[in-house]
Order: sequence, then structure tokens, then C-alpha cells
Amino acid sequence: MKYVRNAWYPLGWAEEIGRELSRHMVLEEAIVVYRREDGKIAALQDACPHRLAPLSLGRLKGDAIECGYHGMTFDCSGKCVRIPGQDIIPGNAVVRAYPVEEKYGLAWIWMGDSALADRAGLFHLEQYDAPGWRAVKGGTLRIDCNYLSLCDNLLDPAHVTFVHPSTLGTPAGATVPVNNEYGERSIIVWRWIRDAPAIPLFAKYGGFATNVDRWHYYNYTAPCFYAIDMGSCLTGTIADMDKRHEGVQMFACHLLTPVDESTVLQHWFHVRNFRTDEAAMDAELTRDMDRAFNEDKVVLQRIQFEEEREAARGKPYKRIILGIDAAPRRMHKMIDQMIEQEERVAGHGAMAARQEKVTA
Amino acid sequence: MKYVRNAWYPLGWAEEIGRELSRHMVLEEAIVVYRREDGKIAALQDACPHRLAPLSLGRLKGDAIECGYHGMTFDCSGKCVRIPGQDIIPGNAVVRAYPVEEKYGLAWIWMGDSALADRAGLFHLEQYDAPGWRAVKGGTLRIDCNYLSLCDNLLDPAHVTFVHPSTLGTPAGATVPVNNEYGERSIIVWRWIRDAPAIPLFAKYGGFATNVDRWHYYNYTAPCFYAIDMGSCLTGTIADMDKRHEGVQMFACHLLTPVDESTVLQHWFHVRNFRTDEAAMDAELTRDMDRAFNEDKVVLQRIQFEEEREAARGKPYKRIILGIDAAPRRMHKMIDQMIEQEERVAGHGAMAARQEKVTA
Amino acid sequence: MKYVRNAWYPLGWAEEIGRELSRHMVLEEAIVVYRREDGKIAALQDACPHRLAPLSLGRLKGDAIECGYHGMTFDCSGKCVRIPGQDIIPGNAVVRAYPVEEKYGLAWIWMGDSALADRAGLFHLEQYDAPGWRAVKGGTLRIDCNYLSLCDNLLDPAHVTFVHPSTLGTPAGATVPVNNEYGERSIIVWRWIRDAPAIPLFAKYGGFATNVDRWHYYNYTAPCFYAIDMGSCLTGTIADMDKRHEGVQMFACHLLTPVDESTVLQHWFHVRNFRTDEAAMDAELTRDMDRAFNEDKVVLQRIQFEEEREAARGKPYKRIILGIDAAPRRMHKMIDQMIEQEERVAGHGAMAARQEKVTA
Ligand code: FES
Ligand code: FES
Ligand code: FES
Repeated sequence: MKYVRNAWYPLGWAEEIGRELSRHMVLEEAIVVYRREDGKIAALQDACPHRLAPLSLGRLKGDAIECGYHGMTFDCSGKCVRIPGQDIIPGNAVVRAYPVEEKYGLAWIWMGDSALADRAGLFHLEQYDAPGWRAVKGGTLRIDCNYLSLCDNLLDPAHVTFVHPSTLGTPAGATVPVNNEYGERSIIVWRWIRDAPAIPLFAKYGGFATNVDRWHYYNYTAPCFYAIDMGSCLTGTIADMDKRHEGVQMFACHLLTPVDESTVLQHWFHVRNFRTDEAAMDAELTRDMDRAFNEDKVVLQRIQFEEEREAARGKPYKRIILGIDAAPRRMHKMIDQMIEQEERVAGHGAMAARQEKVTA
Repeated sequence: MKYVRNAWYPLGWAEEIGRELSRHMVLEEAIVVYRREDGKIAALQDACPHRLAPLSLGRLKGDAIECGYHGMTFDCSGKCVRIPGQDIIPGNAVVRAYPVEEKYGLAWIWMGDSALADRAGLFHLEQYDAPGWRAVKGGTLRIDCNYLSLCDNLLDPAHVTFVHPSTLGTPAGATVPVNNEYGERSIIVWRWIRDAPAIPLFAKYGGFATNVDRWHYYNYTAPCFYAIDMGSCLTGTIADMDKRHEGVQMFACHLLTPVDESTVLQHWFHVRNFRTDEAAMDAELTRDMDRAFNEDKVVLQRIQFEEEREAARGKPYKRIILGIDAAPRRMHKMIDQMIEQEERVAGHGAMAARQEKVTA
Repeated sequence: MKYVRNAWYPLGWAEEIGRELSRHMVLEEAIVVYRREDGKIAALQDACPHRLAPLSLGRLKGDAIECGYHGMTFDCSGKCVRIPGQDIIPGNAVVRAYPVEEKYGLAWIWMGDSALADRAGLFHLEQYDAPGWRAVKGGTLRIDCNYLSLCDNLLDPAHVTFVHPSTLGTPAGATVPVNNEYGERSIIVWRWIRDAPAIPLFAKYGGFATNVDRWHYYNYTAPCFYAIDMGSCLTGTIADMDKRHEGVQMFACHLLTPVDESTVLQHWFHVRNFRTDEAAMDAELTRDMDRAFNEDKVVLQRIQFEEEREAARGKPYKRIILGIDAAPRRMHKMIDQMIEQEERVAGHGAMAARQEKVTA
């Protein structure tokens, strides 16, 4: 399938990338990843252009990789620097190299035109390293579903009542409508639920025994960044909706890696403004959140299975579009447009290149 | 593939259907099944029309099912009765509901036009609850083959000599030709083998130490009902072939559920006129029969494997048609004609509907 | 895919073929194999022409096979000699029979025109039973890759440095170019590496502590025979390259059976001229060689996986052709030409047959 390519996608947790060769799959491409001697991360196409042996089966020689089959050796820019037994290295003996950056504990890869790779486009959350806030690594879920199905889920406050009754949802949530705000490459879906019991997670960690005002802001940046702002305050204590930091507030950040048409990696961490000195609490909260995200995983994998069965059968089911689908539908359209635009630019580039040749 | 739809197929054993949601596959369709508060069985399409989440992952609320993803709720007629967070329920928010009946310990589903569902079409065997007869539940085999291949097998007395030498067959059976009688939707394949040793099963349970006259009547009703009448009497003791009940007689009833192109469920029980007060014998006889049917399963699954390999390879093997294939071939033709006729009727219905619109 | 058919392929080790029916796959064809009462090996198409039941599920009756489903019986020429329950045996009731020969401990099958099968075409190595030499059975590796990929590997001395550093290769080997000699149906790839450390295997079993002159001659006969001649002598002690037998010499013989597009069997044994009376050494040497061949297996299976992923994805990777690819490319061309020629002859045969009919 087609993906937005001019974007940063998380490769994985930076701390897990060292001097051994590891293989990663991003947008259906196999990538070999390792840390160079200067500590920077290198990422190359994981396929030797000779016979397609994965370079990740080879050996690291300084900052270069020696193929494990016949020893062709590529430096970390992807250029072949040695072919055992022959002196001439053909000019096209290269593998693709990908820009990589590190931020927030993750290594990020740029899958598109390297000239456009820009650190400014990395996921950003100002609270991440602000005073009064605590950022805590979560984990990675591998979900056997299309990444867009997880994107739907992360723009959908309505499911929490039914999928997460013991952690993130309460019956009260079922009937409060949501607000959608659309930017060019971003969407915010939000709602406040006033004077209602706290959700189980906030009752437990925020210590709310009485009713609260609570909010969800699903902040999405296309194609694959989510910062879900959720929090609570005692009923009536925050008048200005922009002063949510005065309450108990947490950002659950989800950074997605589309692996292939039917697999996605969900990397996540949280950033909170309460009990920020209680490191002991981190593991328990992380476990509770992980349990909740696994509840989504069960549903998403079953839907993937049903969709594949439907496709194989060739008899499409009838679908109903609900009010809650507005933001997910906008997200799909946004991504389609980004892909189309990339193709248009690529087309122009190719045409311009042909033009130059003709007039030269 | 195409199936006869206006027919009753066994869903499963009625005693296994309770107040929990269970998923069944019939004719490639996913169906969620449960018992209503009044004890009747309900069967709905197992796919929420919103995002395709299986309803069987949801919750039973009285007689309605609440989808486990966003809570759309369907009553047992398939009508949506609630969409959390929105007041208007679109008219097309329905899932298909299927007629279900119970008989002979099985729950039966009607896969076609509900208006045509009629209890009179259920499998019927007058001996089932007649005095002097004992009906004993067998079990369910899941066989990884096309249901037509099992249908072939159940119209084919010739295989018992080779597949079931220790239970249902003897060498004497190999050379006695069969008689075929054809009805519009039924076939009977039968033969008597006279003055020969009893088959192992009847020697064991019928107590025959000397030669017998024995018979097989394979009674088939299209598409998926089989009542195999088999029995024995001491040689020469039954002159009138219609008085088989004077001998030791047993009906092995096989009721098939096509699951998909390469899977069939074989539900079976037996009804016998001997040792009818010996409940202790039931389990042992059932175990022996189950062993025999598993001998067919091995052959049928291997043939399915070979047929799929042949199809993938694209080089069809040459086939030989034997005399014993007459009834199976007639069965295939019967089913094809039933499918064609259903399509013709459906076509006329659609045309009539269009006609009405035009003239309205 | 297409294969050279007029060729001997190893079926398996002759000692493993007895009076039970065994199933083999060669060139995507299923074959049932057994030893006749006179000790000769018979091989028939493993598919009953009635319903496709594998004959290998049936029973051996003397030299004939009785199908396990309805008892059709085929003699070892493939002719049907019995159909239970019917007297007339149609003329086309036959299964294909394949010529089989035994040599060097292997049973060999001829997959093409039986009239062309000739013992003279079997794999031959004069040292196999010559005085002063010892032949030792190796084993069979099942590798999940296309057989041509293993053929590439066995014409490629360059990989040993990188794939087999602890057994067959040394760094010195990396830079010595190879010589290629081409026949009509054969290729020899060879090189001498002079005054260098022995490879680990020869250091261990040949007892070389100082530098040696060593050689590799990869002797290939299309489509599937390899005799890899490798050996060493103390530096400078063999002047005439044709007198290699004066050194420590070993033939590693690889006889391949293409199973299907993504599976090959590698049958192998070795023949050596050193320590020929030390039977105790055989097992250890065989284990070391087996370990080395398993190193190839890992690489070849990964490449197969990558090639299939590439094909499924529909985006071919760019390939680089190296100097070491000359012999493998010649091999591919040789096999393509043999297949084309067989098709041309088959076409002429068909045309001649039609011609005869017309003029008759
Ligand atoms: S496959 Fe990498 S050098 Fe040959
Ligand atoms: S999938 Fe069932 S309500 Fe959304
Ligand atoms: S399948 Fe072999 S005789 Fe019927």
C-alpha cells in the first residue's frame, strides 16, 4: 500500500540500538540499524544489492557493514567500499541510507526524500522536559492490524466506555458528544465531562473520591503522532478550559510505525504533572496503561481478521457511518491528500529531470 | 463458492447453546448465536455494521447484543436499538437475523430467504422417537475438506471395504454392485450382501457368529442430510426387503454444515432397534463409529490437500470415472440445479422489484 | 516452474527404500516409491486417477498398489489391473511409472521421456570405488530455497571466506580470482591458493601445521550434479596441477533434487584419499561438513524469504552483477537452453504425431 513518506517514524527505543546489527521493518521496507563508532545511529536498506542477502546477517567492520555472503562492504552512507576479489566497484553499488534522529528516547527514521528531513518535524511536546512534569517510558505494542485502524482508534473517545471499563472509561462517557478541530495536518478531538465520577485510572492514581470535571483532548499530527491529553479536577475548580495544568493532567503519547499493510508498532510513553517525584509509581501506572492498550489490540486484531476475511470472500459487508466517525474520516482524507501531494511532487521532479535532459 | 441457501443446516448441538455469545461459521458467513431469555435460540450476522467488530466479542443485554467497540446495540431481530452518543438511528442500521429451529438435539439454521423457512423441511427420521428404537447422540467431526467431498463419501458404499476393514467393511463387499434410486431432491443407494460374514461392528454388537444377509441403504436428501440404514439378519430370515426392522437395524444419521470451501462439520447420531435398554453400550458403540468416521476424515483431508496442490500447480490430473460414481455425480448435479434455481428466483425477484419501481 | 526433465535426480538413499510405500516430491510431482519383490525399486505417480487419493496411503499387494479409498489396483508399470465392483478396466486407467536406478547408495529417478533414460547419464566419479579411496555417506539437507539458488552457491568459491570461516574458508581466499571452464553441459570453476594456511577442515583432518598450496575445483554437470574437488599439499610439493591426488584430496559430492519452486533436497557424500582406513573418523568429518552446509542453508533460506517478500511487494530491488557471477550466470543459461530444447523436441514430437494422423 501507499504511505506518507516525508515524515518521521519511530524506529524503536534508542537505548536498544547498539553496536550489533538489528533489522527493522518500516513502510514495508527492511532496514538494518546500528550505532556508529561516534555514537550516531545509521540506517541502511537491509538487502545486499548482489543477491539480496540481508546485510543484518553480516558483520560490522568499524562503521561499515560486510555482507555475510560474499563480503561486499558498505559504509554508513550506503556506498560500497569493497568487493572481495575485484578491484572495480561499479558506481551503482549502493544501498539506500536513511536519515535518523533521536528524541524523547526514541530513534526516528525519515522514509522520504532525505533533502527534506528536518529535526523540526519530529514529535514535540513542550511538557516532556518542562519543570513540574515527569516523562516515563511506556513500551511498544506490536498489533497485527493496519496502522490506519489504530489511527481511527486513537481519534475515537467513544470506545473507552466499552473497551476500557476498568481503566479509561465510565458509562457517563457514552453520551457526551465530542468537538473536532481540524488543522492542515492536525486534528484535535476533545470533550469535557462535568461533575461525573473519575475514570478508574484517575480515581486510583489521582486520588479522586468525589465527582470531577474531566477532559480528553486527542491531539493528532498526521500521519502518526498522537498526544492524548487527559485529566481531572474537582468539579467546578477549573473555569478556564485552557488551564488544565491546574488539575491532574497526563499526556499519553503514541507514536506509530506502520510495518506493513497488516502490522503496526505502537510506541508510547506518558508525561504527567502529578506525583512527579514518585518513581515507584511509574511501573504500576505503566502496567495499567499497557493493559488498557492491549484491550484495544484485541479488538483491532479481530477487525483486521474480519476485514481480510471479507476481502478474501469478495462480498463486502454493508457499513454504517456514525457521528463519531467524523474525525477518523478527516484523518483518512488528510493522509490520502499528503500521499497524493508527494506523488505529484515526485512526478514533477521526474518531469523536470526529463525536461533538463531534452534541453541539454 | 456457491451453496444451496434455502435449506436447514445444523448450527450445532442445542444443549451447547446458552446465554453466552458463540460464533459459528456456516456457508462462509459468521453468525453469533445465543439463547434468548425465553429459551429460544437467536442467530445474527456476527459483524457490527459500523466497523466490522464481531458482535460475539460484545455483551448480551437482555435479548440484545451490545457491540464491544462502540456499543451499538441490536435486538434479536437484528434491528439497531441504540447508538451511544447519537439519537438518530439510521434505518439501515441492521444486521441479518436467521431463522433457527431445534430438532433431534441439534439447532438448525436457515441460510436463505426467511419467508421460505419451514419446520417441515427439517431432517426427519420416523424411527427417531418411535417405540422400540433408541436414539443416541454421536458427535461432531470437523473435516478440512469441501463438503461435497464428504457428500461423495456418504453416497459411496464401495469405500467401506478399503477404508473401514475393522468396523464397517468386509472383503465380500467389494464386488457386489449397488442400486441407485433418484428422486427430485433425494437419492437412495442400496445393496444387499447375502450369506456373508457380518461386518465387524454388527458381529460385535449384534452378536452374529454365523453368516448373515446384510444391507446398506444410503438415504440422501439434498443438500446435506444423510440417514444410512444398515443392518443384518441371519441368512435367509428376511424375505421381504421392506421388513428390515425385523433384523438388527441401525440408522447412522449425518447432518452436514458447510463451513467454507475447505471445511465441513459432520454432526452425527445413531438410532437403533437392538439392545435399546442398554445405555451402557452407547458410549462404546459411539466410540467405534467415531473411529470409523475418523478413517474417512484422514482420506478426505488428504484428497483436499491434493486437490488444492493440483489447483495451485495449474496442471490438472487426468481423472477416471467409475461405475460407483453414478450416485455422487447425480448428487453434484442436483445441488448445482438447486443453486441455479435459487439464483433464477432471486433474479426474477430483483427484476420484479425494478419493474414495480418503473411502473410506480 | 519449468525444469530439465530428461535427467536423473536423486530420489533418496536406496537403503531407506523398502517394502513400505513412501511418498517423494520431485519437480513438483508426487511419487510413490517402493521396492518390488525382486528387489528393484518402483516409482509411480502418487495420485489415484479416480479421486486423487495418494496411492501411498494404500496397500502393497505383491508388486501392485491397491488404492486405499476404493481399491483400484495398479501394477508397477502403472497399469490398472483391478477395479473392485466392475469388470471393465478403461484403457486410460493408468498412472505414470518412472524409470529408477541405483548407484552410489542413492536411488535415482528419470523425470522425462522414459525412452531416453540411460544409466550412462547417472552421476559418475571414478574415484568412488577406486583403490586408495574411501567413499562415505553424508546425508540429506532439506533447504527451503529454489534449487537454482543452491546451484549458484555450489559454483561460487567466493562465499566460503564469509560463510564458512571455521571450516572451509580463510581470509586468504577472498582475493584470489577464479578460472571458469565451460563445456556443453558442464562447468568447472577452479583456483589454487598458494603458500597460505590450510583451511580449518584440512588443518584438522590433514594435519597441516605449516603453509600449503590448496585448490578448489567445482565440477558441475547440468542440471544437478556437483563434485567439489578440494585438497592441499605442503607448499610447492605438487608441480603438475593434474597430479592433485598426490596431495590430500577430497571430493564433496552434492546431488540435488528440486522438490518445488522453493524447496530443494541436497544429498551429499564424500570420497577421500587420506586416512582411508579410519572408519572412526568418518562420523566426525561428516558432522563438520554437515555443519558447514547448514551455514549455507541459513543464508539460502533467508535469500529465498527476501525474494518472495520482494515478489509479493512488487517492487524489485536493484541488483549488481559481480565478477564471481560469471559461472552461475552460465549455469542458469545452460539450464534454460536445456529446457527450451526439451520443449522444442516435445513440440516436434507433437507436430510429427499430428502430421502422421493427417497423412494416414
Ligand atoms: S549477496 Fe552480498 S556480497 Fe553477495
Ligand atoms: S464497531 Fe460496533 S459500534 Fe463501532
Ligand atoms: S480414489 Fe482410488 S479408487 Fe477411488
